[in-house]
Amino acid sequence: MQQVNLGIIGGGTVGGGVFQAIQRNGELMASRLGIWLSVVKMAVRDMNKKRAVKIPKTILTTDWSAVVSHPDINLIVELMGGTNTAREVVLQALKLGKPVVTANKALLSAHGEELFDAAQKTGTNLYYEASVAGGIPIIKVLREGLIGNRITRLYGIVNGTCNYILTRMKLEGADLPQILADAQRLGYAEAEPSLDIDGCDAMHKTGILASLAHGFWVNPKQIYVEGIRGIRALDIQFAGQLGYTIKLLGIVKRNDSGPNGRACPPIQVSVYPALIPNTHVLASVNHVFNAIYVRGDIVGDTLYYGRGAGQDATASAVLSDLADAALDLKHETRSRIPPFVPHEREGAVLPIDAVICRYYLRLSVVDRPGTLARIAAILATAKIGISSVIQPEGHEGESVPLILMIHDASNAAMRKALRKIARLPVVRESPVMLRVESFD
Amino acid sequence: MQQVNLGIIGGGTVGGGVFQAIQRNGELMASRLGIWLSVVKMAVRDMNKKRAVKIPKTILTTDWSAVVSHPDINLIVELMGGTNTAREVVLQALKLGKPVVTANKALLSAHGEELFDAAQKTGTNLYYEASVAGGIPIIKVLREGLIGNRITRLYGIVNGTCNYILTRMKLEGADLPQILADAQRLGYAEAEPSLDIDGCDAMHKTGILASLAHGFWVNPKQIYVEGIRGIRALDIQFAGQLGYTIKLLGIVKRNDSGPNGRACPPIQVSVYPALIPNTHVLASVNHVFNAIYVRGDIVGDTLYYGRGAGQDATASAVLSDLADAALDLKHETRSRIPPFVPHEREGAVLPIDAVICRYYLRLSVVDRPGTLARIAAILATAKIGISSVIQPEGHEGESVPLILMIHDASNAAMRKALRKIARLPVVRESPVMLRVESFD
Repeated sequence: MQQVNLGIIGGGTVGGGVFQAIQRNGELMASRLGIWLSVVKMAVRDMNKKRAVKIPKTILTTDWSAVVSHPDINLIVELMGGTNTAREVVLQALKLGKPVVTANKALLSAHGEELFDAAQKTGTNLYYEASVAGGIPIIKVLREGLIGNRITRLYGIVNGTCNYILTRMKLEGADLPQILADAQRLGYAEAEPSLDIDGCDAMHKTGILASLAHGFWVNPKQIYVEGIRGIRALDIQFAGQLGYTIKLLGIVKRNDSGPNGRACPPIQVSVYPALIPNTHVLASVNHVFNAIYVRGDIVGDTLYYGRGAGQDATASAVLSDLADAALDLKHETRSRIPPFVPHEREGAVLPIDAVICRYYLRLSVVDRPGTLARIAAILATAKIGISSVIQPEGHEGESVPLILMIHDASNAAMRKALRKIARLPVVRESPVMLRVESFD
Repeated sequence: MQQVNLGIIGGGTVGGGVFQAIQRNGELMASRLGIWLSVVKMAVRDMNKKRAVKIPKTILTTDWSAVVSHPDINLIVELMGGTNTAREVVLQALKLGKPVVTANKALLSAHGEELFDAAQKTGTNLYYEASVAGGIPIIKVLREGLIGNRITRLYGIVNGTCNYILTRMKLEGADLPQILADAQRLGYAEAEPSLDIDGCDAMHKTGILASLAHGFWVNPKQIYVEGIRGIRALDIQFAGQLGYTIKLLGIVKRNDSGPNGRACPPIQVSVYPALIPNTHVLASVNHVFNAIYVRGDIVGDTLYYGRGAGQDATASAVLSDLADAALDLKHETRSRIPPFVPHEREGAVLPIDAVICRYYLRLSVVDRPGTLARIAAILATAKIGISSVIQPEGHEGESVPLILMIHDASNAAMRKALRKIARLPVVRESPVMLRVESFD
C-alpha cells in the first residue's frame, strides 16, 4: 500500500488530537483510501511538556524547519496557530512543492491571498477544511457539493463560545459577565475572551466563507463586525416575546437589488448579533454547536450543523483534508482543485451603510406623555417605518424600556435617526440597536 | 478550455432540470472548474412531448444506445429512472469505459453491487450524489468529509412526501387519508403513493447510506421497513403531549453491545416511524425538507439539511457529480475514489428482533377495573418495564385509549408480549406500537 509521510507542526490541543485520531482510525482510513498515513515528525515548542495525548519522543523535535524540509516528508500539517511563524511554515513548505493542510483561520484571514498565490505558483495545494466550523465539512460543501450553485445567502453560527454564552443567557435569563465567567471556568471561553466575543474569530471565518462562495478575495477590513458584548438579558427576553432568538451571525448576502448592469452586484459581508425567527432551524442551534445556512440559486435552502471547535471536531476536518491531499499525491493531481479559484474578479463588498434590513431598537426612556410621539416623529422624518412597539407598564416619570421593531431601512438612515433619538432629553441611556434577519 | 461532452438519458423532470441548470450556471461552473460542460445529446421517450424546459430538437433522440456509444460523448448522465433499461444504460456505458452519473436510488438499491463491480472492472466510475436526499451533498460528506470517522449513528429523514404528510398531520390534527389526498393534489405525493408512504423509497436511500457508512453491501432484503400508513392523528397528539414528534426515520446504528471479539458488530438498518424528542434538531425538520443526522466517533454529532427531491435540488446534486466526473476525466483519475469501497468485509445487519429500543404503545381498551393490571402483568412477566402511562378520563365500560411508554426491550420480546396483550378481551383494536429514538 502506498504511504504518505506527514510532518505535523504544532503539538498543542489540535496537533495532539490529529495524532490521536490517526492512531485510532488510520487503519480504517487506509482501507477506505488505499493509502497509509504515517506521522514521521512533529515539531513542538517544548519537548518536555506534559501532553494529554502521548506522542513518542522519537518523532518530536523543536525544529519546524527541519520537519518541513525533511526529505521523507511529503505532506505538511500546520497546526501551530498564530500568523507569523505559521506563515513562514506554510510558505516554506509550498515553495518546496509540498502540499499543506492547515486549521488556521487567522492565518488565512490575514495572509490567504499570498498563500493561495504561492500554492498556485508552485503547482501545489493548500487545504483548509478545519479553518471554519470545525467538524462541519463546509469548505468541501461550498467548493464541491454546491459547485453548480450561485450562493445567494449564507448565514453562519460560526463561533461556539458566543453561541454557548447566548444559549445560556437565554435559558437562565442571566447577563453576559456572569455566563462568561462560568464559560471561562468550564473551558468554553478563553481567559482573554475578546477574540471570540467581539466577533473577530467569526470575522476570520465569515471572510473565508464569503471569499469561497463569491470567488473574490474579501479583505477582512471590509467586513463590518459587531460582537455580543452589548447584548443584555433584557434584549434576549424582549426578542423572545416578539418570537425571535438572538444569535451571532456571519452574514454573506448577495444584494440582487444592486446597481444594474454589473455582472456581480456587491455582497454584504458582516458579523453581528441578529434576531432570527424562533421557527427558523438556526434558532435551535444551541450551546457550542455551529451551523451554516446556505442558499444556492438551484439547490434552495440547506443547512450544515456540528461542533465548531475542540480537539476532535477539528481533527475530523484535518483527516478529511489529509485524505484529499493523500489522493492528490497518489494520483499526481496536486492542483486538481486549486485552494482558491477567483471566479468573480469583479466582486465587491457592500458597505454596511448601504445594507438594508429590519431592526430591533431598545431605548431607555422617561415615562412621560409625548415620549413615543417625539421618537416616532424622528423616524417618520427619516422615512423609517415602525412595525411594532412594546412598552411595559411603568410609573410616570420613571425610566422604562421602550422596544421598537423597525421596517426595512438602510443602516446609514438608521444610524442618523438614532443619533437624533439619543439626543432627546427623554432618552436616558445609549439606544440598543440590533438587526433582524428574516431569511427572505 | 477543456470540454466534457455529456449524453443525458432521460428527458423528464430531472433531465429537464439538469439541462436547465447547465444552461443557467454552466459558465459559472466553467470559471470554477476550468472545464466546459456541453450537453451533446439527450435521449427521450417521445420527441414531440411538450416539455416545461425548452430543449433544442437537434440534441434530442429516442435512441439511448446511440447516445451511450456516441464517439464524441465522454460522460453519461442516467436520469431515466426505473431499474431495467437504466441498468442496461449504465452497464453499457461502464463497459465502454465511460463514467456515469446517476440519480437513481432504486437502480442502486437493486443492482448496486453489480454496477459498482462493473465500474471497478473497467477502471471507470459511477457517481450517485443525487440518489439520496436530493440537494444535500450527503454522499460526498460520508465518503470524503467524514472519511476519518467510524459512523456510529445515522438517522435520516429521507422521504419528503412522508415528512410533508407527518408535518401537516401534526399542524392540522388531521388523519393521513385527508392530508395524502391534498398532497397528491399539490404534487407532493404520487397518484400511487405506496413507494413513498410504505417506506420503500426510504429503504432504497437508507440502504445506500448504510452501505457507504459501513463499507459492506447492505442487501435491501435485510432492511426492516415500516411505513407511515398506520400513524393516526391521535398518535401524533399523544406523542406531542409526551414531548415527542413522529418522523419517518432511516436508521443505521452500530450496535456496540454486540458479540465480543468481532471486528465489526452487526449494524441495525431499519426504516420506521419513530418518536423523537421535540428538543432534537431533527424534530424541527418540517414539510418536504430532508435531513440526515450523522454521528462519527471523532467528529461527534453533525446534521445536513435541505430539499430531498424535486427538479432543482436533484439537479444541484447532479451538477456536483458532473464536476467531479469532469475533473476525473481531465486529470485521468477515473477511479480516484472508487464508487464504493467495501472496507468492512465482515459487516452484518442485525435482525430487527434483536434490536433493543424504547416504545410507545397505544391500546384501545375497555374502561373497567383491572384492565391496566392485566396488561401490566403481561409486560412484567416478559421483564418489560413501563416508564409512563397516559389514560385519558373516560366512562366505565366504554373504549378508551391507553398510552404506555416502554423502557428498553428487544423487538422480539415486545412482539411476543403484544400478541398476548392483543388477545385480552379488554383490548378492542390492534395495538399500535411505535419505536422511540433517544439519540444516546
